[in-house]
Amino acid sequence: MSIPKLSYFDFSGGRGEPIRLAFHLGGVAFEDDRFAPAAFAEIRKTTPLNQVPVLHVGDSVVTQNNAILVYAGKLAGLYPQDSLQALFCDEVLNGLEDINVKIGATFGLKGDELRQARANLATEVLPRYLRWLAGRLESRGGAYFADQRLTIADLKALVILRWISSGKLDHIPADLVATAAPSLAAYMDRIGATPGIVQYYAARAGK
Amino acid sequence: MSIPKLSYFDFSGGRGEPIRLAFHLGGVAFEDDRFAPAAFAEIRKTTPLNQVPVLHVGDSVVTQNNAILVYAGKLAGLYPQDSLQALFCDEVLNGLEDINVKIGATFGLKGDELRQARANLATEVLPRYLRWLAGRLESRGGAYFADQRLTIADLKALVILRWISSGKLDHIPADLVATAAPSLAAYMDRIGATPGIVQYYAARAGK
Repeated sequence: MSIPKLSYFDFSGGRGEPIRLAFHLGGVAFEDDRFAPAAFAEIRKTTPLNQVPVLHVGDSVVTQNNAILVYAGKLAGLYPQDSLQALFCDEVLNGLEDINVKIGATFGLKGDELRQARANLATEVLPRYLRWLAGRLESRGGAYFADQRLTIADLKALVILRWISSGKLDHIPADLVATAAPSLAAYMDRIGATPGIVQYYAARAGK
Repeated sequence: MSIPKLSYFDFSGGRGEPIRLAFHLGGVAFEDDRFAPAAFAEIRKTTPLNQVPVLHVGDSVVTQNNAILVYAGKLAGLYPQDSLQALFCDEVLNGLEDINVKIGATFGLKGDELRQARANLATEVLPRYLRWLAGRLESRGGAYFADQRLTIADLKALVILRWISSGKLDHIPADLVATAAPSLAAYMDRIGATPGIVQYYAARAGK
């Protein structure tokens, strides 16, 4: 079987980025197929459910980012083999995807409608999820979300926490993670300092 | 470790039902904790993210129905061991959960707003997902969604396809699956005729 090809937007975030990080950290050969956001309108006509990321593997084209991420995690050795630890990992992956969906639902809104929807995210929805994540982290020992080691749950958490903290989401304060769940802000910084992740972004910066 | 306890609404559908089916078909001992819908307002105050189903396992209370379903599937022997087949299974689980979310978003709407949202589901969104599922099924051989055998993807598909076909969703024609994806309607009937599933519902009917 040829190496898997991951097709996703050419930026360091979103639903494709944790998959790229998993492949990279695990030393798994893959084709990193990146396209400009402007090309998406055409590309989506050819993808299952009109979505990205998609993974080309063998003669299949697979959608659903968490499914692809778990597959990448298994290839990369970043997914728990123990069923209960895998449950803890999957629970966090799905909770994080809820956050993607809830923020995603506010894209395309304008003016007051956007302001109102984002205010609801910033004051209600996101703090609830962030506190839940902080509680999960604490109950698993405080260092990682599952398996007492870095897994794909941490990679997805890093990408989403950085997004929320980026200041690029209008009406979402860049210090929201720090104020709603301080332990999670410290966790984000610690996971972000993982040598393989630092190296990855240092290398990307030149591209 | 004591047996897992699954807490969910006392009806034969929704996000908890595929988990119950998996435990039952796999002969996995579990506590089937069912509550009346009216009790949910109180119960949700005590559950992670205010959601059900939740699985009590060891000293953890776990949310996110697809994560719990995969765990149940592993215990029940209804989840692929091969990573690629597991990817195909997970892809369908996540696509089916999208359907839950999209139908769920129309609950609580009234009158014209409900009519409009459901019409959009019936003519655009659901046919797209149903055709995608039919295509997946065909590409895996036509009988099951993954691993050439019954897996949790088929259990979740059965519960959701029956729900869409129930006639209980206002403005969603009960023959939508049959008209949008005839092969999927035949599949639904075939999976529903699995002896263990037939026995399960025959036994439930007396309760």
